[in-house]
Amino acid sequence: MKIIQGNAVVFTQGGPTAVINASWVGVVLELINVPEITGVYGSLNGIDGVLNENFVDLRAQGEERLIAVSRTPATALLSTRHKPKDEENRKMLEVFKKYNIRYVFGAGGNDTSESLDIINDAAKDQGYELRLFHVAKTVDNDLMENDHTPGYASAARYVANAFRGVDMDNQCFGGLYLGVCMGRHAGFLTAASALGRTTPESGPHLVYVPERAFNIDQFCQDVETVYHKYGRCVVAVSEGVEDKNGVPILQLLSEGKLDADSHGNVQLSGTGALADALIDKVKNYLTDRLNAHSKEKGVSKKLRARGDTLGYIQRSFPDQSPVDYEETLSLGKFAARMAMEGNIDGSVAIQRISDSPYQSEFKLVPLKAVAGKTRHLPDGHINAEGNNVTEAFIRWGKPLIGELNPFGLLDTTKMVIKK
Amino acid sequence: MKIIQGNAVVFTQGGPTAVINASWVGVVLELINVPEITGVYGSLNGIDGVLNENFVDLRAQGEERLIAVSRTPATALLSTRHKPKDEENRKMLEVFKKYNIRYVFGAGGNDTSESLDIINDAAKDQGYELRLFHVAKTVDNDLMENDHTPGYASAARYVANAFRGVDMDNQCFGGLYLGVCMGRHAGFLTAASALGRTTPESGPHLVYVPERAFNIDQFCQDVETVYHKYGRCVVAVSEGVEDKNGVPILQLLSEGKLDADSHGNVQLSGTGALADALIDKVKNYLTDRLNAHSKEKGVSKKLRARGDTLGYIQRSFPDQSPVDYEETLSLGKFAARMAMEGNIDGSVAIQRISDSPYQSEFKLVPLKAVAGKTRHLPDGHINAEGNNVTEAFIRWGKPLIGELNPFGLLDTTKMVIKK
Repeated sequence: MKIIQGNAVVFTQGGPTAVINASWVGVVLELINVPEITGVYGSLNGIDGVLNENFVDLRAQGEERLIAVSRTPATALLSTRHKPKDEENRKMLEVFKKYNIRYVFGAGGNDTSESLDIINDAAKDQGYELRLFHVAKTVDNDLMENDHTPGYASAARYVANAFRGVDMDNQCFGGLYLGVCMGRHAGFLTAASALGRTTPESGPHLVYVPERAFNIDQFCQDVETVYHKYGRCVVAVSEGVEDKNGVPILQLLSEGKLDADSHGNVQLSGTGALADALIDKVKNYLTDRLNAHSKEKGVSKKLRARGDTLGYIQRSFPDQSPVDYEETLSLGKFAARMAMEGNIDGSVAIQRISDSPYQSEFKLVPLKAVAGKTRHLPDGHINAEGNNVTEAFIRWGKPLIGELNPFGLLDTTKMVIKK
Repeated sequence: MKIIQGNAVVFTQGGPTAVINASWVGVVLELINVPEITGVYGSLNGIDGVLNENFVDLRAQGEERLIAVSRTPATALLSTRHKPKDEENRKMLEVFKKYNIRYVFGAGGNDTSESLDIINDAAKDQGYELRLFHVAKTVDNDLMENDHTPGYASAARYVANAFRGVDMDNQCFGGLYLGVCMGRHAGFLTAASALGRTTPESGPHLVYVPERAFNIDQFCQDVETVYHKYGRCVVAVSEGVEDKNGVPILQLLSEGKLDADSHGNVQLSGTGALADALIDKVKNYLTDRLNAHSKEKGVSKKLRARGDTLGYIQRSFPDQSPVDYEETLSLGKFAARMAMEGNIDGSVAIQRISDSPYQSEFKLVPLKAVAGKTRHLPDGHINAEGNNVTEAFIRWGKPLIGELNPFGLLDTTKMVIKK
């Protein structure tokens, strides 16, 4: 198989992850020693760097620096959410010709695979020989054809650690804690809140994902049930939860209260508003119920209730899951090998061989199989009530996030008895 | 020096930290081998466990379990914010007598040292021989007589890591990021956001602490200045910021918009509202300014702006600073030794010998020196403009948080030049 002589370009798009640098560093490490590859360029800010001819020389960086960069969260090649228009696709082809770029590797979500597919068709039309590869990436884990996507496991590790910490914290005083996790349409990251549970009684006790309609009254009753059992309740909620008619829950809870800003925007995500509104709602509900129960005693019970929004730290916390890092670096190398072995295009995906011992393999799948589609949490990973994950999810998720610092628990069966 | 024969009790109070278990485990490890100490009890839920005679047998736990618990965030002895009344102090003394408890160790903030001081006085009045020790604890780091308090360094490590991650994330798209940190009256934890900076251009670019009056207009101008320099701006703000008249900033920003809930409470902290209000304010300000500048071109610029509230995860994230853990365990042991050496009471404090190499020592200080007072960030740790920390703060804080995962940066002086 003859390798076309020319330059290669790598770029990254969309929301970064803790390991996205490892995707393109993997590609580069595999290509820098191939004699036919005359140069390896990093396009800055995704496809915008192609349009502006803004390329970093990646071969000149040296291996040691590249490895250090691969250990660093967010993308050193910067990002964009720019979707190219037709004339921009033509412009990019001109740039590829001008620089003799023959290999293109884009790390991103399904938007990126769609863009690559469009450029691919344009190149074929013009008879310009181009090899285009998509390296999957997203903390949401919502790409088709992937068991899980690079970046998910590190974000999941953070979410699991955050919840096992706040669950211990919540035990100290009792009461309610609610944390809102990323994932507009897919519940994988919210579900990861359950991966750090230390005992059968550990939180999160309730997990709500966007794959199931969210019912505010049912949610309040669910919390009440857990609270009566444990004197406390820890809840994980996806930012994307909607009611059965597809109306965002924040919109329902803030009827008439959410002002548009001076630019006319009503922001429904990327703020702390959902956590605040949900915890307010359930705190008031449960306080009223508790006081109705204890009315005869004439005491008014105060309920401790706290809400947090995990925010951007989920995708950028500098603590890569070891599996995520190794797989992502290797997946980048695999993409480069696929190109060197004469494949024309495709998306490289991680597929699972077994849970225990954990084993995965890489596959080249068609760009169109990934483009423009959303993958959801499988039905078997959500319980019948739609308020928790199942053991099947735990088995699936645990190998991905790596070892967590072990917790020690006090043996409270050993109490002091006064003789 | 004769050691009084009897039992010892340890308890924890107030908001937990990532190392608070190490405080009391240190005490227990030192006491379990002293023949005169007939039993070591853990009071559950702070002084409430004394009032309810709810004691865990800590000697029965074994050293291995105790060490594992000391590695676990939040307090396994649970907590309370209950301030004892006079009759409760008398009741506690009765319980101490009933169980022949002669040694009391309380880990907590200045409320706890105040409580211990009051019990102390009551015991003296009644001629009951009691030894009372306070082991400092608080992520806020606001206790007098301490260079830093157990728990601060681990929370600071988390905040530093969170900001160095989101700072890399913010670079990818540019725009504004604002994170609100814990610390109602003291800015130590917010200041820790600067401890993970990787380069002179790294964020947070602005740091606002409660020790300085916060001016909303000045804040907007500060952000504008940084944005014009870097095309982006990362800001850390303390939840406790107030204007020059002591009015909370959230109250100023939400004039007329903040409804009391059905129970009549207007919540000013423990919600995402401050981050949301500040980022809205500065986004609108800067968008208007940018569009005024570019009006001639007839283009409306959109500004990316995100706000997060770091929340309860700050104090419970399961990643102890090594210095924090070792010091806290040793400080607990020191408190126990102080008791065995015949001291009557006091608070054990960490004092610093030198920054580099980092060295600290422990001192026994009077309970009254710590009780009911708040320590603030020293003037020398805040810059003249009141919008950043100084190098003096960085030198002070760096040794506390431990090594962070190293970051690698791309060399963008090595660009591809088309010949």
